[in-house]
Amino acid sequence: MADELGEALARLWDVIRSRRGADPQTSYTARLLAKGRAAIAQKLGEEALETVIEAVRGDRARLAQESADLLYHLLALWAACDLDPADIAAELKRREGVSGIEEKRGRGKR
Amino acid sequence: MADELGEALARLWDVIRSRRGADPQTSYTARLLAKGRAAIAQKLGEEALETVIEAVRGDRARLAQESADLLYHLLALWAACDLDPADIAAELKRREGVSGIEEKRGRGKR
Amino acid sequence: MADELGEALARLWDVIRSRRGADPQTSYTARLLAKGRAAIAQKLGEEALETVIEAVRGDRARLAQESADLLYHLLALWAACDLDPADIAAELKRREGVSGIEEKRGRGKR
Amino acid sequence: MADELGEALARLWDVIRSRRGADPQTSYTARLLAKGRAAIAQKLGEEALETVIEAVRGDRARLAQESADLLYHLLALWAACDLDPADIAAELKRREGVSGIEEKRGRGKR
Repeated sequence: MADELGEALARLWDVIRSRRGADPQTSYTARLLAKGRAAIAQKLGEEALETVIEAVRGDRARLAQESADLLYHLLALWAACDLDPADIAAELKRREGVSGIEEKRGRGKR
Repeated sequence: MADELGEALARLWDVIRSRRGADPQTSYTARLLAKGRAAIAQKLGEEALETVIEAVRGDRARLAQESADLLYHLLALWAACDLDPADIAAELKRREGVSGIEEKRGRGKR
Repeated sequence: MADELGEALARLWDVIRSRRGADPQTSYTARLLAKGRAAIAQKLGEEALETVIEAVRGDRARLAQESADLLYHLLALWAACDLDPADIAAELKRREGVSGIEEKRGRGKR
Repeated sequence: MADELGEALARLWDVIRSRRGADPQTSYTARLLAKGRAAIAQKLGEEALETVIEAVRGDRARLAQESADLLYHLLALWAACDLDPADIAAELKRREGVSGIEEKRGRGKR
């Protein structure tokens, strides 16, 4: 069920927000956030790469692990860039009922 | 609120699942799923790259758009690899209360 | 022989430089350069991703093709950023006789 | 001059080949090659990501460094996959005089 994922992400977001400004010695998240936007973006890219590799290899268990790493770093990146999950929810909602092709045309993308 | 993101992802997952096996002429998602795992993984990697670039540039509106693209392709990749969002929720839940450093050590990663 | 690669890259560099400022209608390279640094970087990242995927799959012929695409976009990126191949040659020369580990320590990287 | 790059790559290739099967304790390259194709591909992807980030940021000195890292890992990946620089030179030569657009069409790509 996708509801369980929504609940896990909500808890993860609460943890990430609570680590903002915390002592980098005490938490991986505080240390990551202290490194700033570009370093978190780099880590997100690395986790995406591992996700791609496990998907091509067809290793489902590792794909689930790498997907969790990817989501964690995506939420951390939002926190570092002052985005809220609700902003991305609004973007997803805006696209509902719009086909991907039409949506990209509307944004003038590619 | 993170709840809104959970709800948007739940609706998105329902749409993606309903497009499995649908006519590729009628839907971007059906066309994407028909291309198979490696092609979807490639697209996920490209969206991650755009997310990284917008984060480094500091463009919040485009970061929200690219994040939505990234999440859409991540869910499509799960569908193509027979993973359920609940599998990733379980992975995130397993990590709750475990620091990132200890978690990676437990997996023997790096 | 690596000499053949050096000669092919020298010819490729001459072509790329000659396309700077050329009419985008007449050449893919002129069109690419006109898009600017971030767009070329994005293409480089996409070609790197394809290179990674073919290497994991173990398809040698496609790995050679994607490697050629990657090198082409890397040279185009240098041209767009006013770097010359000699700058990268100097960087490689600086590292000769220095182990990778020591080199990264010297740069204070990671 | 691009000739200097060709010579630096030729020397780098000789070093990488000489490290095949060497004691991983004594050399970063031997250690990298011992990790196998997927791990080297992952490192290549990470270096590409850093190259993209420095290009977007417009830091020329770091772009030269990351480009050198990228080339080193690309050559290591070829060694791990039994490709020779001459194979990539042949691929580049095949494309000379063919526009990028026509070339991609010929390969049936995208």
